[in-house]
Amino acid sequence: MTESIQARPLNANVPSKTSFMERYQDIRRFSEYLCEPLVTEDYVVQSMPDVSPTKWHLAHVSWFFETFLLFPAIPGYQSLHPQYAYLFNSYYNTLGERHCRPNRGLISRPTVKETYEYRKYVDEQVLSLLATLDEQRLLEFAPIITLGFHHEQQHQELMLTDLKHVLSCNPLYPVYRERSAINESHVSPLEWVSFPEGIYWIGHEGEGFAFDNEGPRHREFLQSFQLASRLITNGEYLEFIEDGGYQNPLLWLSEGWSTVRAEEWQAPLYWEKRDGQWWTMTLSGLREIDKAEPVCHVSYYEADAYARWADARLPTEAEWEVAAQDVPIEGNFVENGLYHPAPLSTSSTGKLAQMYGDVWEWTQSSYSPYPGFRPGPGAIGEYNGKFMCNQYVLRGGSCATSMTHIRSMYRNFFPANAQWQFMGIRLAREV
Amino acid sequence: MTESIQARPLNANVPSKTSFMERYQDIRRFSEYLCEPLVTEDYVVQSMPDVSPTKWHLAHVSWFFETFLLFPAIPGYQSLHPQYAYLFNSYYNTLGERHCRPNRGLISRPTVKETYEYRKYVDEQVLSLLATLDEQRLLEFAPIITLGFHHEQQHQELMLTDLKHVLSCNPLYPVYRERSAINESHVSPLEWVSFPEGIYWIGHEGEGFAFDNEGPRHREFLQSFQLASRLITNGEYLEFIEDGGYQNPLLWLSEGWSTVRAEEWQAPLYWEKRDGQWWTMTLSGLREIDKAEPVCHVSYYEADAYARWADARLPTEAEWEVAAQDVPIEGNFVENGLYHPAPLSTSSTGKLAQMYGDVWEWTQSSYSPYPGFRPGPGAIGEYNGKFMCNQYVLRGGSCATSMTHIRSMYRNFFPANAQWQFMGIRLAREV
Amino acid sequence: MTESIQARPLNANVPSKTSFMERYQDIRRFSEYLCEPLVTEDYVVQSMPDVSPTKWHLAHVSWFFETFLLFPAIPGYQSLHPQYAYLFNSYYNTLGERHCRPNRGLISRPTVKETYEYRKYVDEQVLSLLATLDEQRLLEFAPIITLGFHHEQQHQELMLTDLKHVLSCNPLYPVYRERSAINESHVSPLEWVSFPEGIYWIGHEGEGFAFDNEGPRHREFLQSFQLASRLITNGEYLEFIEDGGYQNPLLWLSEGWSTVRAEEWQAPLYWEKRDGQWWTMTLSGLREIDKAEPVCHVSYYEADAYARWADARLPTEAEWEVAAQDVPIEGNFVENGLYHPAPLSTSSTGKLAQMYGDVWEWTQSSYSPYPGFRPGPGAIGEYNGKFMCNQYVLRGGSCATSMTHIRSMYRNFFPANAQWQFMGIRLAREV
Amino acid sequence: MTESIQARPLNANVPSKTSFMERYQDIRRFSEYLCEPLVTEDYVVQSMPDVSPTKWHLAHVSWFFETFLLFPAIPGYQSLHPQYAYLFNSYYNTLGERHCRPNRGLISRPTVKETYEYRKYVDEQVLSLLATLDEQRLLEFAPIITLGFHHEQQHQELMLTDLKHVLSCNPLYPVYRERSAINESHVSPLEWVSFPEGIYWIGHEGEGFAFDNEGPRHREFLQSFQLASRLITNGEYLEFIEDGGYQNPLLWLSEGWSTVRAEEWQAPLYWEKRDGQWWTMTLSGLREIDKAEPVCHVSYYEADAYARWADARLPTEAEWEVAAQDVPIEGNFVENGLYHPAPLSTSSTGKLAQMYGDVWEWTQSSYSPYPGFRPGPGAIGEYNGKFMCNQYVLRGGSCATSMTHIRSMYRNFFPANAQWQFMGIRLAREV
Repeated sequence: MTESIQARPLNANVPSKTSFMERYQDIRRFSEYLCEPLVTEDYVVQSMPDVSPTKWHLAHVSWFFETFLLFPAIPGYQSLHPQYAYLFNSYYNTLGERHCRPNRGLISRPTVKETYEYRKYVDEQVLSLLATLDEQRLLEFAPIITLGFHHEQQHQELMLTDLKHVLSCNPLYPVYRERSAINESHVSPLEWVSFPEGIYWIGHEGEGFAFDNEGPRHREFLQSFQLASRLITNGEYLEFIEDGGYQNPLLWLSEGWSTVRAEEWQAPLYWEKRDGQWWTMTLSGLREIDKAEPVCHVSYYEADAYARWADARLPTEAEWEVAAQDVPIEGNFVENGLYHPAPLSTSSTGKLAQMYGDVWEWTQSSYSPYPGFRPGPGAIGEYNGKFMCNQYVLRGGSCATSMTHIRSMYRNFFPANAQWQFMGIRLAREV
Repeated sequence: MTESIQARPLNANVPSKTSFMERYQDIRRFSEYLCEPLVTEDYVVQSMPDVSPTKWHLAHVSWFFETFLLFPAIPGYQSLHPQYAYLFNSYYNTLGERHCRPNRGLISRPTVKETYEYRKYVDEQVLSLLATLDEQRLLEFAPIITLGFHHEQQHQELMLTDLKHVLSCNPLYPVYRERSAINESHVSPLEWVSFPEGIYWIGHEGEGFAFDNEGPRHREFLQSFQLASRLITNGEYLEFIEDGGYQNPLLWLSEGWSTVRAEEWQAPLYWEKRDGQWWTMTLSGLREIDKAEPVCHVSYYEADAYARWADARLPTEAEWEVAAQDVPIEGNFVENGLYHPAPLSTSSTGKLAQMYGDVWEWTQSSYSPYPGFRPGPGAIGEYNGKFMCNQYVLRGGSCATSMTHIRSMYRNFFPANAQWQFMGIRLAREV
Repeated sequence: MTESIQARPLNANVPSKTSFMERYQDIRRFSEYLCEPLVTEDYVVQSMPDVSPTKWHLAHVSWFFETFLLFPAIPGYQSLHPQYAYLFNSYYNTLGERHCRPNRGLISRPTVKETYEYRKYVDEQVLSLLATLDEQRLLEFAPIITLGFHHEQQHQELMLTDLKHVLSCNPLYPVYRERSAINESHVSPLEWVSFPEGIYWIGHEGEGFAFDNEGPRHREFLQSFQLASRLITNGEYLEFIEDGGYQNPLLWLSEGWSTVRAEEWQAPLYWEKRDGQWWTMTLSGLREIDKAEPVCHVSYYEADAYARWADARLPTEAEWEVAAQDVPIEGNFVENGLYHPAPLSTSSTGKLAQMYGDVWEWTQSSYSPYPGFRPGPGAIGEYNGKFMCNQYVLRGGSCATSMTHIRSMYRNFFPANAQWQFMGIRLAREV
Repeated sequence: MTESIQARPLNANVPSKTSFMERYQDIRRFSEYLCEPLVTEDYVVQSMPDVSPTKWHLAHVSWFFETFLLFPAIPGYQSLHPQYAYLFNSYYNTLGERHCRPNRGLISRPTVKETYEYRKYVDEQVLSLLATLDEQRLLEFAPIITLGFHHEQQHQELMLTDLKHVLSCNPLYPVYRERSAINESHVSPLEWVSFPEGIYWIGHEGEGFAFDNEGPRHREFLQSFQLASRLITNGEYLEFIEDGGYQNPLLWLSEGWSTVRAEEWQAPLYWEKRDGQWWTMTLSGLREIDKAEPVCHVSYYEADAYARWADARLPTEAEWEVAAQDVPIEGNFVENGLYHPAPLSTSSTGKLAQMYGDVWEWTQSSYSPYPGFRPGPGAIGEYNGKFMCNQYVLRGGSCATSMTHIRSMYRNFFPANAQWQFMGIRLAREV
């Protein structure tokens, strides 16, 4: 989800103008709700090139509506500032020169206050535009507006994961939001759920929004396979660590092993050992590892090595999608307000649990185009297709994803060494 | 083919002891034949981390027979030198510490002469062992010996591609082997050959040697597709260059575009412009670009960008394999002595030409395990599986490949930025 | 002046308690005065490893008084926060682990508000301590308090130069403080002032504050020499540029030439060409180059190359000091409120002008210990001595230096490639 | 001595034509004598950017005579190969484009044999030129010929130190030349020799060859000082190591400490610990540390840290020169055939021992121009002056220096982190 967004909504339910305006306001408000606990200084920092400052995210999603909706729809539209197009373009070559990504944290101006003014300006323009659109033009712009909703939801997740990285660099361990105590949890045994071989339909088609990379819908032949009934827990991952997992090259992909040695990895990101006990930085501050929670902040390399150690493998994205098709979209999403994966609350005998929410699940599938995929024309065509190289697909959403944002076909993707998203492990195996 | 070799020959025809000994000698001799034009100094240089010095290759393939055949088969076997196991192990963590890969070019000793003595020592040991093996033990060791043959053939190709890179760094443009004049050539028009949708068997099974990564044999569903009848030529690629292909970000994968800018790529590797005319370094020295020859030394990024420019795409490896299944294994191989891709000599109306030899053909498929793939135990298990990450599959062999080494199932693989192998482009498209 | 401060004031006039308290308050207030134009976001950014965020500077100078005065003087003293010692130690190995310098910009907390609270806390403690000290203890602590004054003045200068670098990274060209219009200026001709050969006393001794690196006072033999009567101007430096100065390797030190090519230097730092005209970023925003102003933000390499081009050389630090001894300490200092070097206002026939203020003047002298130099014991000994390697001495202060901070013996020092201080050029030559 | 050579011999005794020809042959033969133990492969390797392959050195010194003598002196002179001027120019910008220094080890051709043919060709041309020169032209070319002699001697030393580095990278520990057993040695106590304050003449003037950086002769005022009577031994340096010298930041220059940590230095270059005992790679193979030998292969940082630990300091280059003026040029030079520093054989009560030979002695003096220094015109002017930045002066020659090459005024120079020359420590202190 490297800020990737959709080319053409393959198909979008067009709701009424009123519901559009309401949804717009809801989503925009939620971005600001997520920022409520922040002090001004938190908005500014970029702790690594992959991270963007919160204030950049806030401005960029506004720029998106400005660029793809307001400019095309309003003749003579003026942005609040002529340089914002340069500063808040993320990666669209079609749209001209832009500010260098790793330098987003060097820009103290526009200030946070000015950024909110920019948001407000765009909100007023969008809402006033929506109010005046007739039905035909609404139909015309509905896809891009809907895309803007999903785009902003993606950045809401990135705001949380980026902020977590920023706060984790601070020896004061700042708390984003306190969390209430968790009930005692116990871990139900991991079971295997079987699926038969066959030709399956994969990908999105028909009604409802999807990103362009989720189509075209097509057939794939799958061998029979099994999927683990739940996510791998911290407790299980600790066994891997204690069994010397990070010291044994035979468990790792060659690139993974090089990374382990170069980065001196000993555990997932944000873990640190104090007096023999593992702790982890969370958005609620530093906490002891809870063995019942799903393991999180592991790279593809670590997920793959764990699977090999456990005598299993990661699922392919097609397997995951087939398995998820009939699972209801429920789980620990951002709306829960935990901002952290949660232990499995109920027993899940014979069923798939935790498929949605908690952590994005690494698949073994390289991110590549579905048969017949063609990016759209213009800037929108740059959103997904050009990232289809050296990235791996993750599925299912996380505790930082909006429930209304995820679906079984949704393809998230990150490089194999990325750890800073809420990323975890579900195992698969041959029957 | 990052020196990757097989885990377990899935199935190997076991020839007679005599034919084994003959084949051993043939292959070993061919390595030395390829070195005949070299002066001592040429054996020593490592021009980049991916390149190994010729003398390292010569020693490493001997070390391979020593490690996997002589030590297990001969009680109390002694290597010629106790440190050679350290110096000539390529990447087998199972076998202990080894010399750092980028430093292979810093080792002036053992000398070339000593390296040949090491080869001779191993040859004597192997041949004398083979002479004494009874049928049962021959059967036992046949897979690893066969693997040793294919391993050495892989390194023969690498010796040529690595040497080409070494010589290309020299402003004197040394000639490896002169080549005779080429007949006037003309290019037949590119046609499209169609294949229907269906479930296809992919991968190796049954008799004959294959690397472990070519199995298990399994089914895949393919949409209908078309494959170009021949390789893309220098002339066609020049059009891409002259159309601003290297200046237009919209044609490139995001990573590819970053590489183009960082490396200042303007053309394939080894091309240089002199007075408005493109030249290229070959193993026969610097030559003017021949527009009829297949384009060569392009990365995955370039192949992908070219395909996008040409309104087509790269084939998947399954498509390529399905298409190649009935094509006879003929072409411009290392035995031809050209050491360079050749123009298509005959017209190829309605048929696939140049599927084997000339250049390895980039596919759009990320190198990943076939369903049910399991690397073997021990060091042999490190040969292929651990490289299945962030690499792309190439098919069909090149002008530096032995004809007896290639087959339709053969999976070569390199990172997307690699250029120094003989790599080229065949297009595919939807029907 | 890489945050370097004094070991032992070799000799300090001890003023009365009242004047001490007044001076403390004056200096502390001036730091805050310099920050008045800043918005919160400006305090956070670190635009390169050499730059520190403003809020770090503000906290560090408070930490200095806490560490070297409050902790030793007040039994059971408690800092406002136990982690501040870790966060705001700059480079004192004696004082234990500290936060990694290039990561100062990743720390959003303590907030700016908390940083000012920390300052206030320290101020209260210091003033209350001073109020209660008897004369003997005042005498005991006077040197370290005085050192704290000069230390804070050094950081006031760094706050300005670092902030300038931060703002220069912003395409919005923020203005720190507007400046009033400058009178028409013309440049008086450059003359040469002569000094005879002889043995001269160099360095500090006796009354008045000095850093430890300014002593011991000692003799040096100087050949006769001449010093330019004023600084080199932008106009003169432009001639160097237009004469191909940045394209001619023969004008440069070997390291300088490598830097010019690697960094693609074409002009001093902060210069940019727009439509054929040179502009420069200043603390009052982007302005056209004024040819009468002293050239500024040049590295040692550039100063040295310019001197060679001008058929002259840079002075040694001893020459500069000898020449400056009788020059009154007047000039364009930070108190002027220009924050930028200024054209020479008056003619300077036969005299040295602009020796103090405007820009630090590069000397050709490597920063090294004076004969008999010994750093003091403990952390204070780390302040200057350990930087005496691969740095060059600059003399005379700049438009960001306090007038009460500078003297003829003062030795500032920076690496040869540094440009971001207010650094300029005065020529010397043999008679 | 980064291949630096002289601009204008300030003054050269002009010997007879015959003695010129003899000296030419002697020096050229000595280069080849030093190469006798090498196998072809040893000539090719460049083990780090600072190192040049032996065959490059052999060609470069020939290129030097060709460029500065044969081309100017012989109308229509043709080099053996038009590209050699490109390949074997070291760093003379005046002479046009040249092969990139770190890539010298990538060039397998010209071969070693061809390199010797090139030498032979140049020898024939030089000798035949000398034979025909009349006295006036001999006088005209005498300075450049003499410079060529000293230039080749410098490269003879570099050939040995570079080769040592190359062989040290090889786990086989190849032996360059065996050495005979050393007599039992004991270390005489370190004494201090005193010198009074005063104005001293420094630098070269008058008859005899010198590099341009040794002049102009000029006066310096020195405080009284003391110099250690001999070099620091391995035994003494071991005490520093065992006292935690490499773990204590307070002993180090700030840059030195960063280097210690980044490079993980624990001991001088080439030292390695095996079973609790220190060994060192020498040109006679791996040997146990001899505590009586002078410590060698230490950087400026290490020499400086050792001096601080020993409560002393390094001498300035002026102090060293003053002390050396009356010391006869005797010592362990390359002609001894040890290629390694040797223990002090005789007691040295009250006198300076080991001033020449054994190891170059680090001074605390930054390499900078003497007052009035002006490099000559043209390419010759690039030899020394442009390196006068961020380097430190070493004095006295080493066990790899020719006895006829060294003198008290001789200024060698290397960056503070360099270790691969034969570099050691002599202490100084205030009286």
